[in-house]
Amino acid sequence: MTNRMQKVRRLLAPYKIDALIVSDAVNATYLTRYPVSESWLFITAKKTYYITDFRYIHEVRAAVKGVTPVMFSKSVFNTIFDLAARHKATHIGINEHHWTVAQHKRLKQACPKGIKLKPANDLVESLREIKEPEEVQAIRDGLEIHREALRLLKRYIKPNITEEAVFAKLEGFVRRRKVGFSFPPIIASGPNSSYPHANVTPRKIRDNEPVLVDMGVCFGGYMTDLTRMFFLGKIANLVQETEAHVREAQRRAIASIKAGMSIAEVDLKARKYLESKNLAKYFGHSLGHGVGLEIHEGPRLFHTIRRPLKAGMVVTVEPAVYFAGKFGIRLEEMVLVTETGCEVLSGHIA
Amino acid sequence: MTNRMQKVRRLLAPYKIDALIVSDAVNATYLTRYPVSESWLFITAKKTYYITDFRYIHEVRAAVKGVTPVMFSKSVFNTIFDLAARHKATHIGINEHHWTVAQHKRLKQACPKGIKLKPANDLVESLREIKEPEEVQAIRDGLEIHREALRLLKRYIKPNITEEAVFAKLEGFVRRRKVGFSFPPIIASGPNSSYPHANVTPRKIRDNEPVLVDMGVCFGGYMTDLTRMFFLGKIANLVQETEAHVREAQRRAIASIKAGMSIAEVDLKARKYLESKNLAKYFGHSLGHGVGLEIHEGPRLFHTIRRPLKAGMVVTVEPAVYFAGKFGIRLEEMVLVTETGCEVLSGHIA
Repeated sequence: MTNRMQKVRRLLAPYKIDALIVSDAVNATYLTRYPVSESWLFITAKKTYYITDFRYIHEVRAAVKGVTPVMFSKSVFNTIFDLAARHKATHIGINEHHWTVAQHKRLKQACPKGIKLKPANDLVESLREIKEPEEVQAIRDGLEIHREALRLLKRYIKPNITEEAVFAKLEGFVRRRKVGFSFPPIIASGPNSSYPHANVTPRKIRDNEPVLVDMGVCFGGYMTDLTRMFFLGKIANLVQETEAHVREAQRRAIASIKAGMSIAEVDLKARKYLESKNLAKYFGHSLGHGVGLEIHEGPRLFHTIRRPLKAGMVVTVEPAVYFAGKFGIRLEEMVLVTETGCEVLSGHIA
Repeated sequence: MTNRMQKVRRLLAPYKIDALIVSDAVNATYLTRYPVSESWLFITAKKTYYITDFRYIHEVRAAVKGVTPVMFSKSVFNTIFDLAARHKATHIGINEHHWTVAQHKRLKQACPKGIKLKPANDLVESLREIKEPEEVQAIRDGLEIHREALRLLKRYIKPNITEEAVFAKLEGFVRRRKVGFSFPPIIASGPNSSYPHANVTPRKIRDNEPVLVDMGVCFGGYMTDLTRMFFLGKIANLVQETEAHVREAQRRAIASIKAGMSIAEVDLKARKYLESKNLAKYFGHSLGHGVGLEIHEGPRLFHTIRRPLKAGMVVTVEPAVYFAGKFGIRLEEMVLVTETGCEVLSGHIA
């Protein structure tokens, strides 16, 4: 049994549940350290059942430690409630973000009287937010590969190269290095940089304009996510000033990060600075988000979120200013929250 | 406005709804012919609203025809119900397969009194099941590329080559041809072929054993999906006989396919034949599934499904026999249902 599984079990009582259904593949993969696919975990205080079908059961029996493999034939829901009865579980937690309304209807239909389904929406997620040292190391390793990609781009991005060619260069790189993209990279030149989620286009990069590159690699299951601006030729004063303001907003946010700090406050450090420069209205998204097994995971850094940062969280800090149709500046770092402050994991990556 | 959108509008009345929310990106892409991302359609009998945020609104305004772009700021749900009020829509359809329980709770909270949310789970899907001529053509084009990949494998698969090397060969191919995989290919040699969803392993292919290759390419947005068996060297009698039985099961199922035929009956043509050879218990999955913009879409071909096939459906027919730990045989073709019978779209692909 993994340490992670023990932590989940200890959380059952505080969530007032006797058992937890894990239906999400990423959460199940996190808990079992095995690439779960189309299967369910049913976790009680004493036991974890790995419920799957005939396609996977053989490999699960051979490869997954600390679980009791169970094969279902007709309905996974009946199997789950049979196990619940065996363990006298009457309060069963589910993550309502990972059940469709249609699935949930079938689950409720199969649910015997006397058993209550309860939301436990962030139980596993609350563990995943706090990265273990080995997870931080995986992200560091990913960032070293990311750094190589950026060095390559630094030499490659020039006027008259198309955004698509830059994309192809990155594709070749991840292929050679046998990593994946953590999301489709954004390569947005000139006015395209003013659209936060621009698609890669055949547009030729021109002299004297900014190029925004937001990309990440996936290495050992963990994601990286950084945005870098490339400035070609002579850059207009407005672009330079805006970049300086976004950088200062980012610096202030990062300087405020430490365990115990309110997430809302961190977002507001950046947002209020931009406001003081009349730029906050051009910054329409959150300051950042957690990164790990998924490119977007908890916590979201936004000014409506009042809970505190915790040591071990890895979050992006990505303030931005977008002048629609003109240009945009986004600067994004990955930051590890510590007890006394934070470490900018990507701080050495130019 | 696309023809597809007109068809959706005509379905509102039969589904007893005044409006439909489309929250699924594939369905929205199908209806708008634009790659929809993180956006919603709100479709009334007269108008289609494309609801998105500031990241996408500029491009949507410029690029999507036949829709009224609406930008939401705080909550997409409030925007939806504002539009519902404007159109006096009181019965709004949603696809319960595409809403999580958590999202649905928020939707219900935002839902004013007097408005009812109703399941309309297969409204767009029922259109997508019936392929238009241009969609069939996209699949045919994909199959020609698929054919090239199989020719390549025919020359490449030899004893002592690893499954992973075969995978790398395929990866190189799709890269050169600038297509994607429609799903991670299955390359399963010898005993690995007995696991329906085997992972690609470093195992070396040996002489005198079967190799199962289940793969597909994605071309122009449409998927292909075929399984081919490669037989190396001298093949054991049991393998040969099993292959002949699976082939006959497939032949019988395909021979029965035409518009109006019950889906259950088609599945049973294959399943009963295998039963007569005492092999049905080694065939644990459905006979097939629809293919199109997604690798698995409607209709599922299974013996519990009583509705009829319709002309224009494109489905896989993939009977199989798996002797766990020994070997498995799966044969998979893609078939277009017609009024008078069917066309095996992949029939010319050896």
